[in-house]
Amino acid sequence: MTKAPKRLSVDEAALARITRTPFMQSSKVYVGGVRYPELRVPMREITLSPTKHADGRSTENPALTVYDTSGPYSDPTVELDLKRGLPPVREGWIARHKDLEQLSGPSSGYGRERLADARLEKLRFHGRTKPYRAKAGRAVTQLSAARRGEVTPEMEYVAIRENQKREAAYAGQHAGEGYGAAIPKEISPEFVRDEVALGRAIIPANINHLELEPMIIGRNFLVKVNANLGNSAVTSSIEEEVEKMVWAIRWGADTVMDLSTGLNIHETREWILRNSPVPIGTVPIYQALEKVGGKAEELTWELFRDTIVEQAEQGVDYFTIHAGVRLPYVPLTAKRVTGIVSRGGSILARWCLAHHRENFLYTHFEELCELMKAYDVSFSLGDGLRPGSIADANDEAQMAELATLGELTKVAWKHDVQVMIEGPGHVPMQRIRENMTEQLRLCHEAPFYTLGPLTTDIAPGYDHITSGIGAALIGWFGTAMLCYVTPKEHLGLPDRDDVREGVVTYKIAAHAADLAKGHPGAQQRDNALSKARFEFRWMDQFALSLDPEKAKEFHDETLPADGAKTAHFCSMCGPHFCSMKITGDVREMEAGMAEKSQEFLAGGGQLYGVAKEG
Amino acid sequence: MTKAPKRLSVDEAALARITRTPFMQSSKVYVGGVRYPELRVPMREITLSPTKHADGRSTENPALTVYDTSGPYSDPTVELDLKRGLPPVREGWIARHKDLEQLSGPSSGYGRERLADARLEKLRFHGRTKPYRAKAGRAVTQLSAARRGEVTPEMEYVAIRENQKREAAYAGQHAGEGYGAAIPKEISPEFVRDEVALGRAIIPANINHLELEPMIIGRNFLVKVNANLGNSAVTSSIEEEVEKMVWAIRWGADTVMDLSTGLNIHETREWILRNSPVPIGTVPIYQALEKVGGKAEELTWELFRDTIVEQAEQGVDYFTIHAGVRLPYVPLTAKRVTGIVSRGGSILARWCLAHHRENFLYTHFEELCELMKAYDVSFSLGDGLRPGSIADANDEAQMAELATLGELTKVAWKHDVQVMIEGPGHVPMQRIRENMTEQLRLCHEAPFYTLGPLTTDIAPGYDHITSGIGAALIGWFGTAMLCYVTPKEHLGLPDRDDVREGVVTYKIAAHAADLAKGHPGAQQRDNALSKARFEFRWMDQFALSLDPEKAKEFHDETLPADGAKTAHFCSMCGPHFCSMKITGDVREMEAGMAEKSQEFLAGGGQLYGVAKEG
Repeated sequence: MTKAPKRLSVDEAALARITRTPFMQSSKVYVGGVRYPELRVPMREITLSPTKHADGRSTENPALTVYDTSGPYSDPTVELDLKRGLPPVREGWIARHKDLEQLSGPSSGYGRERLADARLEKLRFHGRTKPYRAKAGRAVTQLSAARRGEVTPEMEYVAIRENQKREAAYAGQHAGEGYGAAIPKEISPEFVRDEVALGRAIIPANINHLELEPMIIGRNFLVKVNANLGNSAVTSSIEEEVEKMVWAIRWGADTVMDLSTGLNIHETREWILRNSPVPIGTVPIYQALEKVGGKAEELTWELFRDTIVEQAEQGVDYFTIHAGVRLPYVPLTAKRVTGIVSRGGSILARWCLAHHRENFLYTHFEELCELMKAYDVSFSLGDGLRPGSIADANDEAQMAELATLGELTKVAWKHDVQVMIEGPGHVPMQRIRENMTEQLRLCHEAPFYTLGPLTTDIAPGYDHITSGIGAALIGWFGTAMLCYVTPKEHLGLPDRDDVREGVVTYKIAAHAADLAKGHPGAQQRDNALSKARFEFRWMDQFALSLDPEKAKEFHDETLPADGAKTAHFCSMCGPHFCSMKITGDVREMEAGMAEKSQEFLAGGGQLYGVAKEG
Repeated sequence: MTKAPKRLSVDEAALARITRTPFMQSSKVYVGGVRYPELRVPMREITLSPTKHADGRSTENPALTVYDTSGPYSDPTVELDLKRGLPPVREGWIARHKDLEQLSGPSSGYGRERLADARLEKLRFHGRTKPYRAKAGRAVTQLSAARRGEVTPEMEYVAIRENQKREAAYAGQHAGEGYGAAIPKEISPEFVRDEVALGRAIIPANINHLELEPMIIGRNFLVKVNANLGNSAVTSSIEEEVEKMVWAIRWGADTVMDLSTGLNIHETREWILRNSPVPIGTVPIYQALEKVGGKAEELTWELFRDTIVEQAEQGVDYFTIHAGVRLPYVPLTAKRVTGIVSRGGSILARWCLAHHRENFLYTHFEELCELMKAYDVSFSLGDGLRPGSIADANDEAQMAELATLGELTKVAWKHDVQVMIEGPGHVPMQRIRENMTEQLRLCHEAPFYTLGPLTTDIAPGYDHITSGIGAALIGWFGTAMLCYVTPKEHLGLPDRDDVREGVVTYKIAAHAADLAKGHPGAQQRDNALSKARFEFRWMDQFALSLDPEKAKEFHDETLPADGAKTAHFCSMCGPHFCSMKITGDVREMEAGMAEKSQEFLAGGGQLYGVAKEG
């Protein structure tokens, strides 16, 4: 059943070229824990230059720390070797967990088969092969700990991470207007625990993903962004996929889904996991389908089960499971403009129809929960019947499936398994709120994780934008994580530039939503950047932006000279005609109003100090 | 006072290279009027290929007509010579207007001076030099006609234009949820007239802009998009600006603002106007400031008045006038993070403070109305105190100015002058609706015309996206026209690619808003495109998109072969693994459910007809 791999080695030279440059004016700082002093929670600190006043004085601008998803890659003091993987920061916590046991090797048939295949020697990641698993009858999930009232290291970690340092210089914030519960001014480990216990937030953290820097997904926390990658029948190599992961987290991806459907999926995933500081999600049915040669009707629960164990023992943090694509819902899609557009959804719909039986993921859901629980893999309950066009938005098929996902959420919770719910897709703006309302109602406030939604179908080539609009809106309404869409959506596979464009667009949507919800401190980055802009501190403006390199590059296209980056004007208006400069003058003049303005005119009236030089 | 022009000629070869390629599968169609049979209202008709069914049958897909801003440039049957300008389509209507007179030459001092300057001979557009003007005491504005109950040719023109042909094949639409009055199922000339009479919509159509294809701006019509262009102190030539205008309307700009601040502003504007089928707006204070060598305090009402007459006689359709920047409001901006960011606003603030006198545009507003009325130039009342950062959004300065703009709206209406109101700027999502609510309340439902707004400050290089989100939202809430923002905002001057990116982003925002408001028929383009997508009619999908060229280019990056554009799969999943294809199978199987699925499995179970070939 195992396909012969076409490529039999990993290009080590390519791995060594992985992007590691820190962002400009930035350094990595680590914050320790109180309960768990060994924690080293990473943040990016952006150093800023002083404000220079007209009278020659200058005022310091305090550094700003920002949430940092890029992992050790952006810390030049960490020595990295991708062949050995990232430092296993969670190893201590896991190794001393009393309810865990370490196996002698993979317990899945497929995992053992791949490990025994000598042809894969040069392709394989050589590292840990003894996975952890919960002892029989023990609960090791974050949800079970939270319910017991425990604050785990992961919980303290995310609490620290969500609270960036507040700087008085950048204070001041509009009141938010969010959906549901309010966000506290200070995120405490206990608040994290309680949100997890209620099922309102998840910490996707497989006990076998030791390299993970924990993060949290819930609507009372910062809105998160997921980036997809993965090879397909159209070839792409392991080193390319690892580089894409590093690239995506550099721009701010909070989690990464490996959607590989081509060759060597198992080995590709191992390389990604061992080198990923962010949670990795997968859609196990994709690999299961590969194992039956693409014939959906040949899928069985046993084969799927083995795939779940295989991936869970590698350390995948969340699985998309399309258990809500129930047989009776399939005919509801027949009259749609775009039928079923989810790959997982269509595979299962086909299986259901071919056998005229209920979806095996639905019928085996309790067993599935037992497996997920043993490794603390979180459910991402997939929306296999999500609409693929504006015409199909919020229809009966979508809503029927959503209700089933709510029912399954309760089952998962019964087993102490963490759950989030996937959402659409394509939805016109006026129907987005309804998605959120219904999700909260039907799924008992489990976190919502949406793809876009795209707010119109008419702009292929720009679907990061059609969907960025919807993502910002649904994030504001309460969606906890946004799955990015790249400019290549509907057209082709994203390249590096597309991944960057997609991630940055979604960071914009997530941040706009954080502002709108009134997330404490979110606005300080806006305030710091706007202050820098107003004071013509160009380099600071670049350093504070989501994509410093692009901002600088765009500026330099018209004014490349280094002098221009300290000059009190820019290329839009030139030195004689700058509103920012005029405002500075107005501000000074305003101090003494009429008197001072007379004085000023008497003195020659030349306000443009910089212009004289230019 | 006239500066010696540095460049003394226009590059005719460059003018001849102007972009004229029609969009793929598209042809221009013209629809005649009923009241005015001579009207030829342009639309783009997109021809689509038939749907091919599995059983060999095929079904025709009717052509779709879409709103077309690109003018005669995209009609290969029209012979164009930019040196002679576009055909003056409104000439008949204007020439026979009983309340108009034709002058013997420009009546502004500056206009006469430039005409007499022999050095400008080769730079000058050689055409019409005898402007029209209303006879003394006569009202020639669209508003005056509407109030008299007249349906003008312009009104019938825009009514036809707003009603694209409805195709049953693409019917089906979500209910809208708009702000204020409902949009009728069919836009009649009388409805247009009534909306204009109420001041809820404007038809910017200077009697001297004979080349104009009339359009309407109002919240009960399609949301419109403006693109800015213009040279600056950093040089750019006349032919570049004309080409930028043609380029902007190609991608869908409904109006263009010429914000030139460099050399030969007068001549540049003449070339643009004579070649523009869309309304042209300007900010006359920019040119006035040039005339006084950049010294704001030297501006006078007389000089400004002459500039208004100069530009009105050239045919500018709307003027941004910052008459709301009142002296007492200026100090309100001193504590802002980003002070005054509007160029016009800062020029006038500076003037007010230097003289310690009230803004001369405010004190001379009635005289200004008399001038605007004589040429039917519409007011775009500028928001000189708009916020330049999230921190400053919706503050006292902004709201004080908005109230003054409302007061001035009533004055303009008293003089039968059409008015729209400019809006911000930078606003977090949760405060956008308040902008719209206050604008409607304070400005008596005059159309709102907003820049963005940007929903966060932290993404320079991506501000078309930060603002596209805000634009979609405020458009949904009722904004009539969206001023585009390009990726270069805050960083530099936009090039061709930026203009295209900016316009397309704003067409997305406008269309998303049209869908959300439930604009009748808006969704049929989405439906047609999604139908094409589902049926793997790749070329039709490209042709129906806002940027067919980019969509095709992205697709071809991974699958360039012509065969791939008719194949029933795409590069994302490859031939074996396509959800669209699987859904097609599901749909077929679903017809006979269990029976048929058995039959199918018995017959070998191979569903992938295309895969066999691939």
